[in-house]
Amino acid sequence: MSSATDTFVSENQERFLEELKELLRIPSVSTLPDHSDDVKRAAEFVAAKLRDAGMENVEVIATDRHPLIYADWLHAPGKPTVLCYGHYDVQPADPLELWNSPPFEPTVRDGNLYARGSADDKGQMYMHIKAVEALRAVNGTLPLNLKFLIEGEEEVGGASIAKYVAENHEKLKADVALVSDTNMYAPGLPTLNVGLRGMIYMEVEATGPMRDLHSGMYGGAAPNAVFGLVELLAKVKNARGEIKVPGVYDDIVPPSEEEKASWASLPFKEKEFLKNEVGSTKLTGESKYSVLERTWARPTFEVHGIAGGFTGAGSKTVIPAKATAKVSFRLVPNQDPDKVMAAFEKFVAKNTPRGIKTEVRVLGKSPGLLVKTDHPAIQIAARAFSDVFGKPTVFTRSGGSIPIVGDFAEQLGIPTILMGFGLPDDGLHSPNEKYNIENYYKGIMTIAHFFEQYGA
Amino acid sequence: MSSATDTFVSENQERFLEELKELLRIPSVSTLPDHSDDVKRAAEFVAAKLRDAGMENVEVIATDRHPLIYADWLHAPGKPTVLCYGHYDVQPADPLELWNSPPFEPTVRDGNLYARGSADDKGQMYMHIKAVEALRAVNGTLPLNLKFLIEGEEEVGGASIAKYVAENHEKLKADVALVSDTNMYAPGLPTLNVGLRGMIYMEVEATGPMRDLHSGMYGGAAPNAVFGLVELLAKVKNARGEIKVPGVYDDIVPPSEEEKASWASLPFKEKEFLKNEVGSTKLTGESKYSVLERTWARPTFEVHGIAGGFTGAGSKTVIPAKATAKVSFRLVPNQDPDKVMAAFEKFVAKNTPRGIKTEVRVLGKSPGLLVKTDHPAIQIAARAFSDVFGKPTVFTRSGGSIPIVGDFAEQLGIPTILMGFGLPDDGLHSPNEKYNIENYYKGIMTIAHFFEQYGA
Repeated sequence: MSSATDTFVSENQERFLEELKELLRIPSVSTLPDHSDDVKRAAEFVAAKLRDAGMENVEVIATDRHPLIYADWLHAPGKPTVLCYGHYDVQPADPLELWNSPPFEPTVRDGNLYARGSADDKGQMYMHIKAVEALRAVNGTLPLNLKFLIEGEEEVGGASIAKYVAENHEKLKADVALVSDTNMYAPGLPTLNVGLRGMIYMEVEATGPMRDLHSGMYGGAAPNAVFGLVELLAKVKNARGEIKVPGVYDDIVPPSEEEKASWASLPFKEKEFLKNEVGSTKLTGESKYSVLERTWARPTFEVHGIAGGFTGAGSKTVIPAKATAKVSFRLVPNQDPDKVMAAFEKFVAKNTPRGIKTEVRVLGKSPGLLVKTDHPAIQIAARAFSDVFGKPTVFTRSGGSIPIVGDFAEQLGIPTILMGFGLPDDGLHSPNEKYNIENYYKGIMTIAHFFEQYGA
Repeated sequence: MSSATDTFVSENQERFLEELKELLRIPSVSTLPDHSDDVKRAAEFVAAKLRDAGMENVEVIATDRHPLIYADWLHAPGKPTVLCYGHYDVQPADPLELWNSPPFEPTVRDGNLYARGSADDKGQMYMHIKAVEALRAVNGTLPLNLKFLIEGEEEVGGASIAKYVAENHEKLKADVALVSDTNMYAPGLPTLNVGLRGMIYMEVEATGPMRDLHSGMYGGAAPNAVFGLVELLAKVKNARGEIKVPGVYDDIVPPSEEEKASWASLPFKEKEFLKNEVGSTKLTGESKYSVLERTWARPTFEVHGIAGGFTGAGSKTVIPAKATAKVSFRLVPNQDPDKVMAAFEKFVAKNTPRGIKTEVRVLGKSPGLLVKTDHPAIQIAARAFSDVFGKPTVFTRSGGSIPIVGDFAEQLGIPTILMGFGLPDDGLHSPNEKYNIENYYKGIMTIAHFFEQYGA
């Protein structure tokens, strides 16, 4: 295998890092309407870099919300076609006061690049483009056919790309998709994720009295929207972390014994996980399952945020009229999001306390997914990964959700290689998100190796 | 009895209303640090009006937070002394978008004056000053001795006045206190409140992981601060509205049979209360007690506000690190706030879910109170009220808390006449707070009659 691309990457490290920093400076927060111009700017930046790398037919495609970017290079007849996916949008940076350096001013500390989106997913998405550049610079051509489809709505449900994939089967036809938006299991340990959880993300709104009421005059008789929501949400899980919505566990296929044995062999230390990653006094959840099984292969219910009533400084004695919570179910392979959703709606209707009205709004929905490990492209990806990192590749799952992988499977009928270079402590969606700079360079090399070997 | 003061009030209505409007334009929100200059301005305004009315020794007394105002007139030897109390601070006006006219631009509609503080308590406090003015204008003197003590921290726990009362027993010596900060039971129905609930107002903060975590990667194993708080709060009351904190109901003295019979005779219509005042589908609380008993003579637990995690537009998949709720217990006469507080702290420690840390911060604390109806001043107050409104005065309780009434009882050993002119639908602490303008004028007359008859 070629070490020429490795050399090219090494020689261009500084520039590759500066280009990524430039992209990270654009606060392309897809969830906040104020940032829609920044999102557009990030899309144009990515499109320009695809053109510079030699990709053809580069399009910035307007959608109902944030633009998609398409590009292709199809001059390797008889060779496979890889569809590269990534996203250039990022999560909001709040709470800002917890960042040690500004979220949109990328800062290098201890071999890491700190910025919102450095790992999720700008830093990883950009490696695909730099791998193309490296291969073309060294060989004057590419070893296989490539298509890029990059979105700006991954953090807000990805409606536009889902629609685009559904409407463009022929244009997006490929043998396999490549996504770099996941973690390595541990530093230096090449990892391919073969399982993802799905998700239903919802807002639950509770309404009590018609307006905020004085708690002295009405307390004891008037329904309280915040307490009503609290009562309802508390019923969804019991103290053992089990979801009490009837039917939610019905269709779960447990991981195979081999999978469980392989997970048990991973360098997972519960005590360190608790102390260094979670940082609380105890772990929670269904204690009859291992932590890896709980986070990779069990459904969960979480409340992501809650707001209602008076929350300013000091005291205000109201019975609040309204309260809202953002909640989600994570789903495992074989669970049907629509079925779980229907069960939850029935549960909410049945358990809404007296005097309270509730409304459930679905903001996003995707199934869990398992990818087969015997596909040749996945085998080659594992080899390329091992080559660059010098260790055997492990197959794991991830508890996160990448809805597009489901769309690629259902709409295009192709498997997805989840070749991620993040690390477990990167702090995705949190303050002080970072990306390991060594992994950034080695990731570009690994992707180039994969393209070469898959096209060989 | 004199109708000369009534005539004076009638002839000066327009000016009395304009003066009140001027006071209401000052956004003296005591809970918000941004408004501390406004609070100061309101204090100066009130002090100036006390001087104009002929009160002497007017002081604006600096405190740790917001100023107190003292004034007296002590030239009626052998006559009783009344200590007039009121507050010039107001609740925050949010949510602003629900006001039909700006909260700090008093607006007259349908015989009501709409503004934050119009009823609670600027409009009512100001009547005492105008009653003094009327009496002096008509008689050239006052029929009894008067002291005024007006505070700017009623909506934030009243720490400064509590300290001041404790340290100035001699200066504040009086026969009875007069407070106008309550409601008439119904329009046109003269009402003296003889019972108040006390309150413990707290913040409960829950901490889970050391930072917000990605719910995909950690969901199923990491404790969620919002859900932990939800689980804890849901345990405080059961579905029947009963407080589950052991010992909370121990010391309750139920209302007498006479009191209950008198309440049953009041023009209370549960259906109308639900529809017109509460505006929800059903009432809540302990259904074995009547609504009046629940709101006047039973303790309650309410969540006034809750905040934690991501609450912006769209979706963010975090496991929140922190969550906070503002909660309170309302207390009835004979319950010891310290005892209830200790019971709650024990309950929180015992019921805090696995992996969560909780902290309870007390923001305010006061006992419930019953005032004896056979005190001569209360009998005279009832007569003055009846004279002006033309109906017999009823004795009721209020579910609200006026901590200062407890201080007057404990520190000064005097009963308080709760002679309020608000109406049940005034919307205290809510958007579109209003005060009935007719009650404003009649209230001034009633107070003047009371002073005259008590000094006769």
